[in-house]
Amino acid sequence: MDGNSTPKTKRGAQRREQILRAAEEAFGAQGFSATSIADITRKAGTALGTFYIYFASKEEVFRELVLEMGQLTREAVTKSVADAPDRMSAERAGLRSFLEFVAKRPSLYSIVEEARFVDPEAYRVYFTRFAKAYEKRLLAAEQAGEVKLGDAEVRAWALMGMAKTLGERYVLWEDTPDIDYVVDEVMLLVGRGLLP
Amino acid sequence: MDGNSTPKTKRGAQRREQILRAAEEAFGAQGFSATSIADITRKAGTALGTFYIYFASKEEVFRELVLEMGQLTREAVTKSVADAPDRMSAERAGLRSFLEFVAKRPSLYSIVEEARFVDPEAYRVYFTRFAKAYEKRLLAAEQAGEVKLGDAEVRAWALMGMAKTLGERYVLWEDTPDIDYVVDEVMLLVGRGLLP
Repeated sequence: MDGNSTPKTKRGAQRREQILRAAEEAFGAQGFSATSIADITRKAGTALGTFYIYFASKEEVFRELVLEMGQLTREAVTKSVADAPDRMSAERAGLRSFLEFVAKRPSLYSIVEEARFVDPEAYRVYFTRFAKAYEKRLLAAEQAGEVKLGDAEVRAWALMGMAKTLGERYVLWEDTPDIDYVVDEVMLLVGRGLLP
Repeated sequence: MDGNSTPKTKRGAQRREQILRAAEEAFGAQGFSATSIADITRKAGTALGTFYIYFASKEEVFRELVLEMGQLTREAVTKSVADAPDRMSAERAGLRSFLEFVAKRPSLYSIVEEARFVDPEAYRVYFTRFAKAYEKRLLAAEQAGEVKLGDAEVRAWALMGMAKTLGERYVLWEDTPDIDYVVDEVMLLVGRGLLP
C-alpha cells in the first residue's frame, strides 16, 4: 500500500484534491459499485495511473470521503454552535448548519449513507463520533440546567436521526429547500414536545 | 417479463415464499451487489431455474422485499396503535412495535436502507407512504387536542427519522437490545421536549 501518502508538493496536493472532488461527484451520482476508477480520473482530468499515486483503491478514496464528511460536518456544527447563548439556540444553529451542509454537499450525504454497505466500519465510526460529541454537549447543558435530565446518549442519537432524515426529505428531495421553515417547526417539537 | 406471477398452487406459493425468505437473508447478510440469484436459490433449496418462475430478476425480488417491509411495518404499527387511548400512548406503542420489528427482521431493515441505492423509487415510495399515514394520525390528534398545533408532515418525518436511527443504533448494533429503556427515554423527549 503506497496509496494515501500525503503529497509533498503543492501540485501534488492539488491533484489529490481534484481526485477527491471527482470521486465525490461520481460516487454521489452513480453510487460506489457503478463508479470505476477510470470514471473518477476522467472527471478529474488526470491519467488513470495518477490515481494510484494518491490512493491504493476505490475503497480507500471512498473511506477518505466519509472521514472528510465527518470532519466537515463536525466543524460546521461546532462553528455554528460556538456563539449560541444556550443549548436550544445551539440545537437550532446546529440543525440549520447541518441542513445547509447537505444542500451544499449532497453527494457527501449519500456517500456516508452508502458507507453502511461499502464500509460499515467507517459508517459506524462516523456516526459514533458525531453522537459522542453531541452527547457531551447535551450533558453540559443538563448540568447548566438548560435542558431536562435524561439519557444524553439516547437523545443524541434520536436528534441526529431526526436531522439526518430531515436532510434527506427536505433538502435532497426538494428543488428549493425551505430550511428556515423546517428548522422552526422541528425546534418547536424538540423544545417543548408534542403534548399541549 | 413473466416473473412475479401469483402462483396458482399451494406448492407454488410455498416455493415463492421460500425464495423470498432466502433472498431476505442473503441481501441482509451480503448486500444487493454481492448476492447472486444462485446464492438465493441455494439458500432456498431450489433449482436456479425455479427462481425465474416467480421473479424476472434480482431487482424484482429486492423490490418485493421493500414492499413487504412497508406492508409489515405499517401493519405492525397500525395494530399496536389501535388500542391506544390517546396519541402519546400511540406514539409509544408505535415506536416500540417498530423497534421490535427491527429486532425480528434485521435484514428487512437493511434492505430498505440499501434500496436508496438499488431502487431509489421503491425507497421513496416506502418512506413517503409511511409518512403520509403518520401525518394523518398526527393531524387527527391535533384536531382532538391531544398534541400541540404544528406541521404534521415535518413532524412525521422527524419522528420517523428518530425511530429509524434508534432502530439501527439500539437494536441492530446491540446484542441484547433494551427496547423498553430506549422507548421510555425517547417518549420523554417527544412528549415534553428538552426544555426544563
